Amino acid sequence: MNNEVSPQDKTPADDTGWLDAVHWDESGLIPAIAQDAQSGAILMVAWMNREALALTASEGRAVYWSRSRRKLWRKGEDSGHVQQLRELRLDCDGDVIVLKVTQLGGIACHTGRASCFYRVLRDGTWQTVEPVLKDPNEIYG
Amino acid sequence: MNNEVSPQDKTPADDTGWLDAVHWDESGLIPAIAQDAQSGAILMVAWMNREALALTASEGRAVYWSRSRRKLWRKGEDSGHVQQLRELRLDCDGDVIVLKVTQLGGIACHTGRASCFYRVLRDGTWQTVEPVLKDPNEIYG
Repeated sequence: MNNEVSPQDKTPADDTGWLDAVHWDESGLIPAIAQDAQSGAILMVAWMNREALALTASEGRAVYWSRSRRKLWRKGEDSGHVQQLRELRLDCDGDVIVLKVTQLGGIACHTGRASCFYRVLRDGTWQTVEPVLKDPNEIYG
Repeated sequence: MNNEVSPQDKTPADDTGWLDAVHWDESGLIPAIAQDAQSGAILMVAWMNREALALTASEGRAVYWSRSRRKLWRKGEDSGHVQQLRELRLDCDGDVIVLKVTQLGGIACHTGRASCFYRVLRDGTWQTVEPVLKDPNEIYG
């Protein structure tokens, strides 16, 4: 029959039980924390849908779901700042992912900093404590 | 006039501009990542509303908003596993918090483990790689 979706239409990457253990939110997404595998620094937080998580595991690099652009986003596709996957972890509730990664270029943030968490609360204000390592115009120009 | 809310009704903890820099989601919440200040291990992720974040800063300990119980949750109030605040960070988009903490008792997870991220993806399944340090029945009994 013409309009039926057959089981064979599932991609191989999607055909894995471990993805069913993930508790996707009402939008079908899960937050993913990228952590530097060596230093332990928290680099950034982004979102994954089922396909992004499956691709992250199968390709061995961080693949996110861009909520603003509504499409898959292979981290580093424009900047070269690819995140090579070292380890994938899931929390007790199954609703947050941690990726331990090797951050190519040493820059995770679109501002050109090593980490997106470059503001620290001091004396009642957010103070920037990490330098811009590369001008974003150079990264994305 | 009787039913008016005057500016004086604002609590002092709420009267701080740094809270306005936070981009709360449509439910008025922000995800907060608790990270061990010494080891860098990611312990858990929970949620904060404006009051929880203000209290975290003013009390110097992690205070979350429990979405299931719909009330403030001073981490460790039942278990004794208080998270002493060492540093508060905000990301570039202003929509994720990192708390560097000293985890009293060495246990962050309600399962009695050091961290909630005790499952690692290996050979296509989530494998538990961290031991239960204390029986949850003892922690919450």
